[in-house]
Amino acid sequence: MDHLIYTPEKEIKVRIENLKLEINRTGLDGVIIVHHTNLFYFSGTSQNAHLFVPAEGEPLLIVRKSFKRAVKESSIRNIVEEKSVKKIMDRIIDAGFKNISKIGFELDVIPVNTYRFYDTKIFKSSELRDASGIFKGLRLIKSTWEIDLLRTACKALTDGFASVPGLLRQGMREVELAGLFEAELRKRGYAGLSNMRAFNQDFRFGNIVSGKSGSIPSYFDGPVGGEGVTPANNPHGAGYKRIKEDEPVYIDYTCVVNGYTADAERIFVLGDLPDRFYLAHENSLKIQDELISMIEPGIEWQALYLKAVEMADQFSMLDNFMGLGNDRVRFVGHGVGLELDEFPVFAKGLTMKFDNGMTFALEPKFVFPDGAVGIENTFVLRDGQVEKLTIFDEQIIKI
Amino acid sequence: MDHLIYTPEKEIKVRIENLKLEINRTGLDGVIIVHHTNLFYFSGTSQNAHLFVPAEGEPLLIVRKSFKRAVKESSIRNIVEEKSVKKIMDRIIDAGFKNISKIGFELDVIPVNTYRFYDTKIFKSSELRDASGIFKGLRLIKSTWEIDLLRTACKALTDGFASVPGLLRQGMREVELAGLFEAELRKRGYAGLSNMRAFNQDFRFGNIVSGKSGSIPSYFDGPVGGEGVTPANNPHGAGYKRIKEDEPVYIDYTCVVNGYTADAERIFVLGDLPDRFYLAHENSLKIQDELISMIEPGIEWQALYLKAVEMADQFSMLDNFMGLGNDRVRFVGHGVGLELDEFPVFAKGLTMKFDNGMTFALEPKFVFPDGAVGIENTFVLRDGQVEKLTIFDEQIIKI
Repeated sequence: MDHLIYTPEKEIKVRIENLKLEINRTGLDGVIIVHHTNLFYFSGTSQNAHLFVPAEGEPLLIVRKSFKRAVKESSIRNIVEEKSVKKIMDRIIDAGFKNISKIGFELDVIPVNTYRFYDTKIFKSSELRDASGIFKGLRLIKSTWEIDLLRTACKALTDGFASVPGLLRQGMREVELAGLFEAELRKRGYAGLSNMRAFNQDFRFGNIVSGKSGSIPSYFDGPVGGEGVTPANNPHGAGYKRIKEDEPVYIDYTCVVNGYTADAERIFVLGDLPDRFYLAHENSLKIQDELISMIEPGIEWQALYLKAVEMADQFSMLDNFMGLGNDRVRFVGHGVGLELDEFPVFAKGLTMKFDNGMTFALEPKFVFPDGAVGIENTFVLRDGQVEKLTIFDEQIIKI
Repeated sequence: MDHLIYTPEKEIKVRIENLKLEINRTGLDGVIIVHHTNLFYFSGTSQNAHLFVPAEGEPLLIVRKSFKRAVKESSIRNIVEEKSVKKIMDRIIDAGFKNISKIGFELDVIPVNTYRFYDTKIFKSSELRDASGIFKGLRLIKSTWEIDLLRTACKALTDGFASVPGLLRQGMREVELAGLFEAELRKRGYAGLSNMRAFNQDFRFGNIVSGKSGSIPSYFDGPVGGEGVTPANNPHGAGYKRIKEDEPVYIDYTCVVNGYTADAERIFVLGDLPDRFYLAHENSLKIQDELISMIEPGIEWQALYLKAVEMADQFSMLDNFMGLGNDRVRFVGHGVGLELDEFPVFAKGLTMKFDNGMTFALEPKFVFPDGAVGIENTFVLRDGQVEKLTIFDEQIIKI
């Protein structure tokens, strides 16, 4: 990438129209969007602003900072500047909206004290209802525009993987390799922040672990942890361990370009690995291929997880599947988009079904006390076909 | 850094004792801490866990993931593993606690839906009260242990500044320099994530902007924005602009090592700058020196902002102080610790007073259409004296 990309007006128009259908279907008078991710999706800007989308009429973007920039970025025509959050309702009334009594709000991410401020100081004559399910549902199906942006992010990530043989040296610390690898992603347009919607799952770029570091678990809801560089603040991923010959170097990274989150993992090694790692890695690839063959519109999300577990059991590697022992996680993939933890999720009990336009990562992995192996790629289901977006050598890469 | 640092038991004991005084003073029966930052401060671990601190008795750490790691990291003696969040209250009762009716909770960061789950499913016989002010107040005064950790982070950041002359090349993109600079910080122990407590202010490492990029505002509540690489997800800081000769290269970065947040800024230039930038930069240094001379226990926080504005006005540079025109911010510094946006804050209306043990950044800066200059350093007030922790050449650095 070498320039900023703005969301086209027609893209925003379609999203707003779909949102208005949901507003009317659920009996709301409108929604207020303030968290930056949904705000960007529905307005094209993630400046400090509130987007009001009414059941009837044009949306109104009320900007606190930076107004100049929001005007440039958003195709929403009704934009006003308002430095005081307390006056948002005044601006909505100024725009001609009356009897706004039921307002949808993002209760999945707005903190309690912030909500109480809105409820008692700003929307005191209105009822704030949870609209987070509406936003999540609308964002589940990606447009061609979004899929193309995701493809660009996936290319940046695989180009990053291609740089690894030039970066990896025996004796360097995991965190040193991580810094150099991240620099490769940064210059390809990664802003350096991967978004997660879940509370308390703050996350940086990704995860580089070597050998036994692959079996160190963490707070994070993923199959592989890593020691990290501190028990504080995001204890996960690359640590101070020096990378040796003949141990798996597991690189699982996101790459967020133009807002869209690529997610993939590859295994590198200086020298070679014992056969048992190759066997486990081959099993991951078999699971991946089987899951890809199952995916089509109408298939339940949980079917992938159940099949993956069945295969891991057949391989006699269930205790190592998606983590080690007590720290195993109970899914085999997740949706990706503007956030890393979108729908679909491939876990037991999720009976929702695949449809065209869904974008997701599959990550069958095996963890052993002396290292982690496996595969992760980002995909899209479109026109009934699964397309892999992170195209890069899937074998263990010997350097 | 080359190894993980764990919080000593005596440090945790003092923090818990101070917390129990507050619990009793405010009439609570206990507090539940779940957000990773407070959790780390009071337990020494930031794994996926809940810490129950009762008004009377020993604290109980209930760990979801990873139990093994929490045991290693925390000096809390009562630790139990519990995979189901719904059973937290059962574990508290098992530990012998009865009549827990008023529980303090972190309502400043816990999302509404998460709170409602806790309120209706887990603590249905208890009342959840806001205890965020208690935690914020206790974390305001840093111990010698914490100050020493912050000093280590500050050293990593200034060592990063020392690497800039070796990295900066004419014609490279801002984001390319950012990646290489971040790699320098990463290998010195920066986990890659700067914590902010404020809602919707997601933040990455920091900000490298050159020339006119310094005047591009952003959503972020700081004096300098920057174009970033996308209008989505954190549109701030380094962009695709190529760095030229004879324009200011403004580098304002956090460096979080062992959990503690250093924050400093320096100006570099390939070639030289017009005199007016040197004049503005000199004015920033004069404001910094004047503010340092004012700080002592008992001085109101707002006094620093009022003095800074008065001086900027005397310099006839008020319209450029802390931002440009409409996008100026109304503070001249902020507390730093486990988070970037701690108390104290130096802004009008904040009449709280300085005390020993406070750690903070001062950042008098001037922004012009063709570039930003100024200074930022991290300080501690101890034994009545201000000590600068980010010691590095403060003049504009010509390369």
